[in-house]
Amino acid sequence: MTHLEPAIQHVRAHQDYVLQELKDFVAIPSISTLAENKPDIQRAADYVEKILRSMGMDNVAIMPTAGHPVVYGEYLKAPGKPTVLVYGHYDVQPVDPLNEWLSKPFEPTVRGENLYGRGASDMKGQDIAFLAALAASIQHGGGLNANVKVLIEGEEEIGSPNLGAFLKENKEKLKADFSLNADSGILAPHIPAIVYGLRGLAYFELWVHGPEHDLHSGMFGGAVHNPAQVLAELIAGMHDKKGRVTLPGYYDDVRKLTKEERKNLKRVPRSDKQIKAEAANPPKLYGEAGYTNVERLGARPTLEINGLYAGFIGEGSKTVLPGKAMAKISMRLVPDQDPDKVEKQLIAYLKKNAPKTVTWNLKAFGKTPGVLTAFDSPQVKAAQKALQTVFGVKPVFRREGGSVPVVSDIQRILGIDSVIMGFGLPDDNLHAPNEKQHIPTFFKGIEAYIHFFANL
Amino acid sequence: MTHLEPAIQHVRAHQDYVLQELKDFVAIPSISTLAENKPDIQRAADYVEKILRSMGMDNVAIMPTAGHPVVYGEYLKAPGKPTVLVYGHYDVQPVDPLNEWLSKPFEPTVRGENLYGRGASDMKGQDIAFLAALAASIQHGGGLNANVKVLIEGEEEIGSPNLGAFLKENKEKLKADFSLNADSGILAPHIPAIVYGLRGLAYFELWVHGPEHDLHSGMFGGAVHNPAQVLAELIAGMHDKKGRVTLPGYYDDVRKLTKEERKNLKRVPRSDKQIKAEAANPPKLYGEAGYTNVERLGARPTLEINGLYAGFIGEGSKTVLPGKAMAKISMRLVPDQDPDKVEKQLIAYLKKNAPKTVTWNLKAFGKTPGVLTAFDSPQVKAAQKALQTVFGVKPVFRREGGSVPVVSDIQRILGIDSVIMGFGLPDDNLHAPNEKQHIPTFFKGIEAYIHFFANL
Repeated sequence: MTHLEPAIQHVRAHQDYVLQELKDFVAIPSISTLAENKPDIQRAADYVEKILRSMGMDNVAIMPTAGHPVVYGEYLKAPGKPTVLVYGHYDVQPVDPLNEWLSKPFEPTVRGENLYGRGASDMKGQDIAFLAALAASIQHGGGLNANVKVLIEGEEEIGSPNLGAFLKENKEKLKADFSLNADSGILAPHIPAIVYGLRGLAYFELWVHGPEHDLHSGMFGGAVHNPAQVLAELIAGMHDKKGRVTLPGYYDDVRKLTKEERKNLKRVPRSDKQIKAEAANPPKLYGEAGYTNVERLGARPTLEINGLYAGFIGEGSKTVLPGKAMAKISMRLVPDQDPDKVEKQLIAYLKKNAPKTVTWNLKAFGKTPGVLTAFDSPQVKAAQKALQTVFGVKPVFRREGGSVPVVSDIQRILGIDSVIMGFGLPDDNLHAPNEKQHIPTFFKGIEAYIHFFANL
Repeated sequence: MTHLEPAIQHVRAHQDYVLQELKDFVAIPSISTLAENKPDIQRAADYVEKILRSMGMDNVAIMPTAGHPVVYGEYLKAPGKPTVLVYGHYDVQPVDPLNEWLSKPFEPTVRGENLYGRGASDMKGQDIAFLAALAASIQHGGGLNANVKVLIEGEEEIGSPNLGAFLKENKEKLKADFSLNADSGILAPHIPAIVYGLRGLAYFELWVHGPEHDLHSGMFGGAVHNPAQVLAELIAGMHDKKGRVTLPGYYDDVRKLTKEERKNLKRVPRSDKQIKAEAANPPKLYGEAGYTNVERLGARPTLEINGLYAGFIGEGSKTVLPGKAMAKISMRLVPDQDPDKVEKQLIAYLKKNAPKTVTWNLKAFGKTPGVLTAFDSPQVKAAQKALQTVFGVKPVFRREGGSVPVVSDIQRILGIDSVIMGFGLPDDNLHAPNEKQHIPTFFKGIEAYIHFFANL
C-alpha cells in the first residue's frame, strides 16, 4: 500500500492542525434541541461547508430542510468504482448538568490523552476524522478508490426528524452503493470493532394529571391520589422481577439470538468488570435474566426512564401536592420490533393500569426500528482490513446498544446498507458531562478511514 | 350573662372605630420574608404595642429575638382564675402575583361584606378581634374571668424560626394554663368551629444513586438498574392497594378515632363534592380505605410525594440513563406518631427494599408532631359555649390537615394545650391575591372572644 504513504505521512505531519480543526468545531455550541442555539447550528453548518470547500469537494452546499440544514459535498472522480455516502452530524446534545463538567463544554480542553468538550466524540471527532482522511486522500494520495458523497446533518440528537424527507427529495443526488456511518466507536484503544447491529428507539413523554393545579399537601393530602405517586406506580409496573418489560406483547417480535451470534458476541472482549467501569460504576450491574451483559446491551430490548419531574424540586421543603407528574420513557428496540406497535403496547399498558383518579397523555418523539447488516459484504471486508492494518488485530463484530435512526432511514429510503465504523470509546461520556475523545484513537481513526477508502 | 352587656354594647357602638383599627393595621406591609419590609415589621410591632398600652395592659414591651421582635403585654388581675396565653402574629405573606389583586394589597378596601387586603384574615383580623374583645372586657365588662398574657410574633409566615428559643428563654414569664391560638377560622358565616387537632409533618429528600454520572441510555440501557426506575419502585411500594402507608410500624402509634369523634367529624358540613371542588377537581377523590374524606384530611396520617426529579426534564428528548434520582417525600402525622420514629420507619423501609444495584441517602427537613387538644377541657367548653351563644348553633369540632408549628412548640416547651379559635373563612384567599376578612364574621368573633374570656 505504498501509494497511501503520502496521505498517511501528511496527516501524521499535520496532527496539530487537525486537532485544532476539531477544537474549533467543538467550540461551536450546536445544540440541536434548544431554540437559543439556532445561530450556533448555522455556524456549525458554515464551518463544515468551509472544510468541504477547502478539501476541494464539488457541489458543496448548505441545503435547507424543515428543520436544521444538511451540509453536502461530493467528489466523483473514480469511474467504475463504488459510490459511498458518508454520513455525519454536526449537532450535539445539551450540556446539563453543567456544574458537573470539569472544564466548560464548549471550551475544548486537553487533559491527558483526551480532548474534553460536548460533541468531541459524538460526533465532531468522527466528522473531522473522516474529513481529514478524505482531504489527505484527495490531495496527497492516490488511494481514493471510490466516489464520495458527504452528507452531514444537524438534527441527529433530536432524532433526525427531517432527514427522511430530505433523503426522499434528494434520492437521485444521494444515490450510492452503500453508506459509511461514522457515528460509532470501538471497544478500547487496542480493540477495533465493526458494528453490525443497532438497536432502535421509541421515545415518549408521559404526563399524569390529577388536580388542576398544585395543592397544599396538608390541606388536601389524604383525599387526593398524588399524581407523582401514580406515575411511580405505573413506572414500577413496567418491569417484572426478572427485569423483563411488561408491556403486553413487547417480546413477541424480538428476533431470537442464533447460536452462532451468541458465540460471536462471546468473543467481544468486554468483561462485566469493564462494562461496570464504563457505566460509571453503579454499585452492581443489573438486567434481564438469562442474558449476558454484552447481549443485554446490544441484542435485547429495554425500557428506560430518561427523566422524571413533579412538584417542588428546589432546595429545601415545600409542602405541595403536585397537580401533575411527568416521565420521559424510551425503549431500545431490536429487530423485528416495530416502534409504532410498541407505542400501542405502551398505550394498552396505561389504559389497563392507570387508575381513574388521574388522567394521562402520551407524546411520542423519535421512533426508529433496530437494524442488522450482513457482515460478508465487500465494504464490510474493506473496513475489516483497514482496521486490522492500522490496529494490528482483527476487529470484533458487535451489536451496539444505541440507535442510529439514519441507518434505518437510509436502508428504507435509499435502499442501501451502512458500514458502521467510528472511533469513539465506551468511556467517552456521550450525552453526559465531561464528554471526551481519545486523541490517539482519533488519529488512528483517520488512518483507518484512509485505508478503508483505498480498500474499496 | 348580663354582666357582659356593657362590653358587648361597647363594641357594637364602636364598630367603625374597630374596623378602622383593622384597616390601619392591614395598611402596614409587614411582610416577614422580605428584607426591604424590615421597617414595616417594626411599624407593625409598634402599632401592636400602642394598642396593648391603650387597652391598659401591663409590662407591655417589644421583645427582641434573633429575627423579628415579639410584642408582649399582660393583664393579671384575676387571682385564682386560669391564665391564658393569647397567641397572634403581626407579619403577613408576600403579595405576588400583584396584578391579580382587584385593589392594592396594602390599601384595605371594603367591597360588599368584606375587607380586602393582605393580612386582613391571616391574621390581623383575628389579632384585632381578640384585642378588641380584651379591651372591651377590661374597660367595660366585668367578664374577664382570666389572667391574660398576649404574645404577638412577627415570623409566623416564615415558619416561626426564633419562637422556640423565645419561649425557652421566657418560660417563666409566659407560664399559663393554656393558650388561645387565634390563627384559624370557621367553616362558613353560620357554621362556627373549633379546631381540636392539627396534623404534624416529617419532610424528607431521598436520593437514589446508580452510576456516578448520567449515561447514554442506548449504550448502557439493559445492563444498569436505572435509578429513576428504582426510585419509582421504592415509591410505589410505600402504599398498599388500600391506600395505606407501608412503612413498618407506621400506624402503631396512630391514635384511633373514637366513636364520639367520628360522630363529631360526620357533622362537619363538608361534602365530598365540595372537597373535590376545593381540591382543584381531580378526576376522582382517593384515599385510605375505611375512612371518610373529612377523616382522611384531618385525622389520618399520609405519605405524599412533594417532588420528583431525574435525568432530562426539558423539552423534547434526551436519551439519558440518569445517574441519580430524587424524591421529596413528606408525611402528615397525627397523634401519637413521633416524627423521629417515622424517620426510622422510612429508613427501615429503604434498607429492606432498596436493591443492591443502587445506593441512597436521606435528608430530613422539618419535623413537627401532630397535636390534639382534649375537647372536654374547661377551656374548650368555654369556647364551645361562647360560639353557641354568639352564632346560635353548636360549633363543629374539626381536625385540620395542615400543621401549625407554634401549637407544637407551645405544647413542647411550655407544656400547655392550645384552644384554636379564629374567625377566618375557607374562601378568604389566604396566601393568595385578594385576601379578605368577612366583616360580619369579624364582629361576631369579637363578641365570641368576649364570651370566651367570661366563660373561663
